[in-house]
Amino acid sequence: MAELANVSVATVSYVLSGRDRPVAAETRQRVLDAARQLGYTPNQAARSLRKRRTQRVALVLSSLGGVPSDERLATDLHEMADARGYSVVSLAVDSEARAAGAIDVLRGGFADGALVNLVAGHLTRDLLGGLATTGLPMVVLSNESGLEGCDLVRTPEMEASAEAVEHLLAQGRRRIAFMAHRHEVYRDKPAGRLLGYTTALDRHGVSERIVTAGADDRVAAYQTATELLGSPNRPDAIFAASDRAAISVIWAARDLGLSVPGDVAVVGAGNIDEGLISNPQLSTVGPLRHDYTDVVRLLFDRLQAEEPPPAREIVRSWTFVRRGSS
Amino acid sequence: MAELANVSVATVSYVLSGRDRPVAAETRQRVLDAARQLGYTPNQAARSLRKRRTQRVALVLSSLGGVPSDERLATDLHEMADARGYSVVSLAVDSEARAAGAIDVLRGGFADGALVNLVAGHLTRDLLGGLATTGLPMVVLSNESGLEGCDLVRTPEMEASAEAVEHLLAQGRRRIAFMAHRHEVYRDKPAGRLLGYTTALDRHGVSERIVTAGADDRVAAYQTATELLGSPNRPDAIFAASDRAAISVIWAARDLGLSVPGDVAVVGAGNIDEGLISNPQLSTVGPLRHDYTDVVRLLFDRLQAEEPPPAREIVRSWTFVRRGSS
Repeated sequence: MAELANVSVATVSYVLSGRDRPVAAETRQRVLDAARQLGYTPNQAARSLRKRRTQRVALVLSSLGGVPSDERLATDLHEMADARGYSVVSLAVDSEARAAGAIDVLRGGFADGALVNLVAGHLTRDLLGGLATTGLPMVVLSNESGLEGCDLVRTPEMEASAEAVEHLLAQGRRRIAFMAHRHEVYRDKPAGRLLGYTTALDRHGVSERIVTAGADDRVAAYQTATELLGSPNRPDAIFAASDRAAISVIWAARDLGLSVPGDVAVVGAGNIDEGLISNPQLSTVGPLRHDYTDVVRLLFDRLQAEEPPPAREIVRSWTFVRRGSS
Repeated sequence: MAELANVSVATVSYVLSGRDRPVAAETRQRVLDAARQLGYTPNQAARSLRKRRTQRVALVLSSLGGVPSDERLATDLHEMADARGYSVVSLAVDSEARAAGAIDVLRGGFADGALVNLVAGHLTRDLLGGLATTGLPMVVLSNESGLEGCDLVRTPEMEASAEAVEHLLAQGRRRIAFMAHRHEVYRDKPAGRLLGYTTALDRHGVSERIVTAGADDRVAAYQTATELLGSPNRPDAIFAASDRAAISVIWAARDLGLSVPGDVAVVGAGNIDEGLISNPQLSTVGPLRHDYTDVVRLLFDRLQAEEPPPAREIVRSWTFVRRGSS
């Protein structure tokens, strides 16, 4: 390149590294032209790849929005990234194609680390394991087993959900419906909230299972609840896999002239603040505090470590919170 | 660089461009070492900058989630990107620092183009103008003037909002409150929905202005509405800058034993589907169809053009939709 530009190697180095040395504008241009001719651009990505420092972190989510806990996770990640001079870029992996696309982006050295919410499962263990072998610092929210090379955040949704359903059973409810997220219905076998539901019913010898979709969407939840509660043998309780859906269930029950919890008990999941302004207030399972700073700290600890630290695991606290709707 | 590696310039070019020419392994290594010494890495980003092809597009939003129209925009962008083999990465510019961070990311050649929703204003016209001069293909949703070098998408929110308030005035409502987004209150002068509100009141000689915050958040909206509607001289109508807030206003009114629209008329903004399951159904201003494919198409047209096409402008259709709540 020095030859092509007819300047010294030192000059090439000064110009291309952007270091503060006096180089005549015309000389500088000649070097840049030569660099371009050779296919090189003194861009930030090239420099940062060398140092493994893009000052970016990736947030990998399973949806395109509308999930309150994802918004909370994003808020905490952005705030802690701000304080450390990092930018945050978000990737949605709500389909197989998008999961593959996100893996390509992350393999391209585009971020220094990633915070991955694996809940809906399109990012498979294999894809994620392959990514971990590249040495990318990762913190993964997942209850799956067999994930290696990253920090893990576990959420005991199953246990808290089973507790909620046992509470409904203890009230004498026997026709308990579960309103599921799409990804819960399409799994090979029940997990998380759905598994909590079936486990509690099994324990108490209740054989009837009423599983519907609707938890992803407030409108779908309202419509599904209207159908369920309008049928002659309506459920006497509905456990919805999201608080958003549970609030729609309360609306639907009230619009049908049913009392909550008298005619139908309602329990949600997530413990969002909105459950406190519904009427009645919403019983729910979820974290008592919406605080992901411990989760985000795992990522920045990993980014700032000289050597990759051993994998760590956080178990988040989930509980059943009883309020007026059950 | 050729000098440093003691090889011909052609050899440097072959090695660094990754082109398929026979170069001895030892020679290749010497070139790569020299490149590293000069601060250069033959990475994908450098090559793609030259070709301007990362196969990524950026979605730049003003919030960390919870805005239904942003989710819809994201959905349409992702679907059209999937079909064209692009990945989508999202950036939030909900503060000045994050706006600056996003500009850095985009200037770094990290995406082939960007779809920018400029609604909340932290990405200033100057920042965006600077980005446009880099030649980055951009489509910007904004009602601001003076944006150049990009395609623009305008939304006549002011006019539709004024129509909604005139409808309330025609019913004889005189104490009409406006529940605003934070960014609407903190602007230098009213714009959009707030300007529609003040314009309609001005036209009809109504001097009372009741402007509150609350439109960003369902819980804040409920609390604000409870205060407003519980006061002795309560409003007889509330126009909320989001449907989510307007639905909370309906809840608050019902919980206070007030009838909607008898005691208080409620109008939202956005025309989300959830307005059809509220009771009563929600009057609103917004688009009749939630379809951003024409907006997204502008971006891909620009990406696929050989030469930068002239700037285009789309005006989205917004109207007042009267339903049961007013």
